[in-house]
Amino acid sequence: MTQKIQNIALVGGTHGNEKTGIFLLQQWRQQNLVQRWREFDIHLLLANPKACELNRRFVDEDLNRCFKNSDLLDLQRSSYEASRASALTAFFGSKKQPKMDFIIDLHTTTANMGVSLIITNENPFIFKLASFIQSRMDQCYIYYVPSKTYCADTDHTFMISMAENGLIIEVGPIANGIVRDDILKRTNQAVEYTLQFLQSHNRAEAVEVPATVTLYQHKKLVHFPTDERGRMDAIIHEQLQDRDYQLLQPGDPVFVTSAGEIIVYTEKQAMYPVFINEAAYYYQNIAFSLTQKTFYHNASS
Amino acid sequence: MTQKIQNIALVGGTHGNEKTGIFLLQQWRQQNLVQRWREFDIHLLLANPKACELNRRFVDEDLNRCFKNSDLLDLQRSSYEASRASALTAFFGSKKQPKMDFIIDLHTTTANMGVSLIITNENPFIFKLASFIQSRMDQCYIYYVPSKTYCADTDHTFMISMAENGLIIEVGPIANGIVRDDILKRTNQAVEYTLQFLQSHNRAEAVEVPATVTLYQHKKLVHFPTDERGRMDAIIHEQLQDRDYQLLQPGDPVFVTSAGEIIVYTEKQAMYPVFINEAAYYYQNIAFSLTQKTFYHNASS
Repeated sequence: MTQKIQNIALVGGTHGNEKTGIFLLQQWRQQNLVQRWREFDIHLLLANPKACELNRRFVDEDLNRCFKNSDLLDLQRSSYEASRASALTAFFGSKKQPKMDFIIDLHTTTANMGVSLIITNENPFIFKLASFIQSRMDQCYIYYVPSKTYCADTDHTFMISMAENGLIIEVGPIANGIVRDDILKRTNQAVEYTLQFLQSHNRAEAVEVPATVTLYQHKKLVHFPTDERGRMDAIIHEQLQDRDYQLLQPGDPVFVTSAGEIIVYTEKQAMYPVFINEAAYYYQNIAFSLTQKTFYHNASS
Repeated sequence: MTQKIQNIALVGGTHGNEKTGIFLLQQWRQQNLVQRWREFDIHLLLANPKACELNRRFVDEDLNRCFKNSDLLDLQRSSYEASRASALTAFFGSKKQPKMDFIIDLHTTTANMGVSLIITNENPFIFKLASFIQSRMDQCYIYYVPSKTYCADTDHTFMISMAENGLIIEVGPIANGIVRDDILKRTNQAVEYTLQFLQSHNRAEAVEVPATVTLYQHKKLVHFPTDERGRMDAIIHEQLQDRDYQLLQPGDPVFVTSAGEIIVYTEKQAMYPVFINEAAYYYQNIAFSLTQKTFYHNASS
């Protein structure tokens, strides 16, 4: 049974060029929106201010891959983000003794992923929260990224792993470096539903959620084809672009190379791609991720 | 009368995070597309390779603002791009003695600008070329940025001013840092039409162009409202977002501030906004540009 939620971190600017979360914090401060949720202690946190100033995803490395316990304790790690992650433990506490009951981490994507709720916990409470939000918003998907399929062990790299419970709200499509009113409103709406759910939880009020919820569980990364010099030598095929969360079947076109050849999907199993053509992953040559569609049954309230 | 066009520079990567032009050059090299246009000498040029490597618009300053004659001759200017612009004169020649007959400079925008043909010359030849392309493509607009309204004198800062004639092909909306198959194809189509027109010109063949063409002439920049610390404190209003080349009238909503206030358009004259919410201009707090719609009559062939 999840305990009462008191301390909530609402985090923006984990990636410095995803300006939606940054401006959302500015709105919350300016309009004193924390006051509307008095039974919580909501902490507004700009996670990577230096990257925000530079309008870049990160200074040295991805901050949202710096929260493994072993990395947090490793003082050999010299990057700005490694230090920043360690510094943030003053705020978050440790994974064993977290100071936050809940972390909401705000992100955007250049992929056509609507409102994607990224969760990492095998926890009925989080599944229920996600299905609460999903059933109330258009084009809202639950992307389940458990530690084991992602990090090779149970110690997650994501910032939300610094609290017992957390949620990444990832909204797109939007270019990096800008704020769009529509994307901002959808992000804020997802935050409001999250707080509404947590409030009902604290008050032991029943909430309506669907009996069954669809999850897209992370399975693997797919890389762009490269030439002999390691340079990306193909782009996403027009028929795959923008088709996040839609079934990709053996034989479907996936890439087109600079020479004009079409490369098709050759996995034996049909899967659901996400983060298709995400700008942030080009530096690692990642073209998209593959997920499996699964179902989860909410326990009745 | 414009002379025969022989030397054409097809330029990508003037801005290092606008990957469409960069990949288009890769395609042209890989497929040896230059061979299809044998009567020209087409030179494929990656303008700012260091910015391309870094996946950033520029290293120190915008390369496409470095081509004023006075700046090219000023050795006090120490930025990477100032040096690069001077270095490129080995290739382009000087403005007085250009080595290229035509420069096609490939760009992308995060704004909803379709295929925007940006021209700087008050030249019937260029107007005719632009109307040739426009009449053959959907959502294609001519954005006229004469030196005088843009640079305060007749010495233009754009790279295309290094040849007697030139054209910027600016396609969007697309996020920085990615290539989209659809945007790439539209860009390439505009390049093909350009070459087709230039070929007909060389051969003195008649081409069909509309008698009258619509131009959007640059008038002024509009900045985001800022707070007392100079920080951007408003975003583009939902009703203005994506409405590039659509009439903006006095009283129409333009911005919404972090405090939730709506700011309306207060110019006396209705105008046509372009580059609405362009990521590249945030660092200068530029929200959009205003243009006037005018008409130009093509001389009959």
